[in-house]
Parts: sequence; structure tokens; C-alpha cells
Amino acid sequence: MEFTYEDLTADEYHHRVAVYQPLTAALRELLDAVIRTEVDDATVHSATETISEVTAALRAQQIPGAYGVRHTAEGRGMAWGNAVIGLRNAIAPPLTVVRGSVTDPVVAHADVELGAAYEGPPGHVHGGVVSLLFDQVLGEAASMTGLPSYTGTLTIRYLRPTPLGPLRIEAFTPERDGRKTLARAAMLVDGAVTAEAEGLFISPRGMTPLHPFAGESR
Amino acid sequence: MEFTYEDLTADEYHHRVAVYQPLTAALRELLDAVIRTEVDDATVHSATETISEVTAALRAQQIPGAYGVRHTAEGRGMAWGNAVIGLRNAIAPPLTVVRGSVTDPVVAHADVELGAAYEGPPGHVHGGVVSLLFDQVLGEAASMTGLPSYTGTLTIRYLRPTPLGPLRIEAFTPERDGRKTLARAAMLVDGAVTAEAEGLFISPRGMTPLHPFAGESR
Repeated sequence: MEFTYEDLTADEYHHRVAVYQPLTAALRELLDAVIRTEVDDATVHSATETISEVTAALRAQQIPGAYGVRHTAEGRGMAWGNAVIGLRNAIAPPLTVVRGSVTDPVVAHADVELGAAYEGPPGHVHGGVVSLLFDQVLGEAASMTGLPSYTGTLTIRYLRPTPLGPLRIEAFTPERDGRKTLARAAMLVDGAVTAEAEGLFISPRGMTPLHPFAGESR
Repeated sequence: MEFTYEDLTADEYHHRVAVYQPLTAALRELLDAVIRTEVDDATVHSATETISEVTAALRAQQIPGAYGVRHTAEGRGMAWGNAVIGLRNAIAPPLTVVRGSVTDPVVAHADVELGAAYEGPPGHVHGGVVSLLFDQVLGEAASMTGLPSYTGTLTIRYLRPTPLGPLRIEAFTPERDGRKTLARAAMLVDGAVTAEAEGLFISPRGMTPLHPFAGESR
């Protein structure tokens, strides 16, 4: 599993953010529109054709595989293909995980609003999406020491259905023991807990903290 | 939580599949291209504009909220907005869960190929995506009696990183007790298990089986 270093200046980094963030944001809107549209068949066919033309234009030059996880020389994490936080991945809501200090009661939290694309039961968040978001936030909480860490086990307890709309995830790390970190989190809607999670995260043997942003690389 | 009935004939149902499946398939390609493209800024800007135009065309007429879970009068499940199996949801790989009989050793399985959009660690499936897929397959295995069922608890054990590419999920239901069903599953790559899952699924009180396809409605 290889991390990639890109020798980007801060200016180049911000330039790329400015180019790709609007593209992904536009694509997220299209994703939502494709689920909810009720236009006539001709408009759907025309949309299908145009989408394929845009894809062909973008594929004229592309990397051979997945985006990977990159870091700039100055230590910025660029997990831009990541399924939960990726700046270039329209599947990602995206989640922005805000980290406090390892000594804070809540070491990491995220506020996010989930729309039609995250549905499972009617009007509610898919149970698997709940676990998807928990895994990311727990993992980022666990890797706050700067060591990348991977999920060993993950347990979710669903207390009640989580409605689509705004929600908050708060994570804690009650125990750290060498390469192992136990992390817990709660999902809240209007201050009430809808689901709880616990994960055991493990840092690979022999790794040293890369830089302060290493945790963004999950 | 309300399920919607749509009075569609079989012909109308198949017509809608024929209209929307290519649209969603084209959008999945675009999602992948947006992550992997290396074209110049002008092409990215132009793509962004075109995508917004297509969105506007599709939004000219749309349902007010999420797609919901619909059934035709003859009992076909249409969970077309579903984040894992939805025919109109480009976030969904999509997963097609194949069901056997409740007496088979493997009661449900799914084969799927995951690309760049499902990445977590470099070149590998996001741990949260692993849990997302498990939740769906376990839930469908649990609801094979025709009763919709919801996830109570879900535990994933990650044995090794799952590489992007083709994978298989196999599910079992070792215990059924009234409204509760225990389901277990394994994720396999080239025949080797990369992760295991166990879930407890609960059917709402007082529900009766809707029809043979009810399980597709999760």
C-alpha cells in the first residue's frame, strides 16, 4: 500500500482545489437530479448522451487507476479520491472531519447534510451509509497522533432510523495502547443519538508519524 | 416510514428501466472520470458548466424529496434511490444481490467490481464501503422471508485490506427467532476472505410479508 508524494507548492495546491472543487460539487447536484428527475424520455436520453460526451472529454488524459493517497512535500494530505472525504469523489458527501486535541472530550466531529443519494429505508439514511461515515470519523479520531491507522473491527448499534437531512458525528478515543486505538462515536440528529459505533484501529508495524496531516490520508 | 405503491404495468416498468439504467450507467462513468482526469483547466471548467446545464434540464421537473421505496401493484420492488442497489443512484456500484433459498448454505450472494470511486487506503476499498456493502447483503439475506427488516447491530472484522477490483459477498442466516434474524457474511477476493460481518436484523412489529420482492426495498 503506497502513499504518493507530489511536489506541489501551496499555490499549486490551492489552484487545483479551485479547479476541481466546483467540478465535483456540480457532479453531486447531477447525481441528486438523476435520482429525482421526472422529465420526459427525450430529455433523459439527451442528458445521457451529453454526460457520455463530458466523460469522453475528461478521459482524453487520465491516470491509469485509482487516485491513491497523495501528500504534498509540505505535508498536505490529498485523499481526493476517498469515498467519504474525497475532493474529487462525488460519492463523498463530502464529510469534513474537524479535529480537536487528543485531550478534548470529543477528539473529532463532523457535520454533514445527507440528501436523496444516501437513502435506504424511505426518507432515511441507509444503514450502510451510517457505518461508512462512522468508519471515516472513527479512523480520523484514531489517527490523530499522526500515525495512519486501519480499521480492525467496527461495530454499529442502530438505535433508531436516521432521517435524511443534517446530522452530526462525534468521536472519542477512550483507549490507546501502542499500535491499537479504541474509538467510539455517536450519530446525532437534533441532539438525539440515532446510532453508536465502536472501532478498534491498528497502525501498521514500524510506521512513524509522517506529518500532522497524515490522518487525512485514510 | 412509508412505502409507496405505483400502479405500473410490467411494460411500463421495463420501459422505465430501459430509460434510466443507461443514464445512471453513464453517470457512473463520469464519476470515475472526474476522479481520474488529468486534462487541462479549460476542459475541466467546460465540463463543470455542461454538467450544471444537464442538471438544470433534469431538474425542470422533479420529485420534491428523496426517491423513497416503491412497489408496483404486481409486487416489483423499486428501491431505485437506494445507495447500494439503486437503479437511479450512481453512488450504488450497483450491487445485485442474488438470493437462493432460505435452506441453502449461502442464502444470498453478490458479485461486484469496485473502481476508483470506492477507494480508502491507496488502491484498496474504503473500510466504510466494505461495511456499506455488507449491510445491504446481510439485510437482504435476513429479509428473505418477505418481511422488511432493519439493521439492529452490525459488526465487521477486517482481516486484510480488500483491493479494488472484483469481489464477492456471501451471506448466511444461522438463526431466526421471531422478528429477529442473525445474519453472517464473508467478503472474498480470489476465494480468500478479506472481511467478515455479523448483523442482527429486526422486522418491525405487526408487519406481514408484503410480497416476494419486499426484501429489495431496504
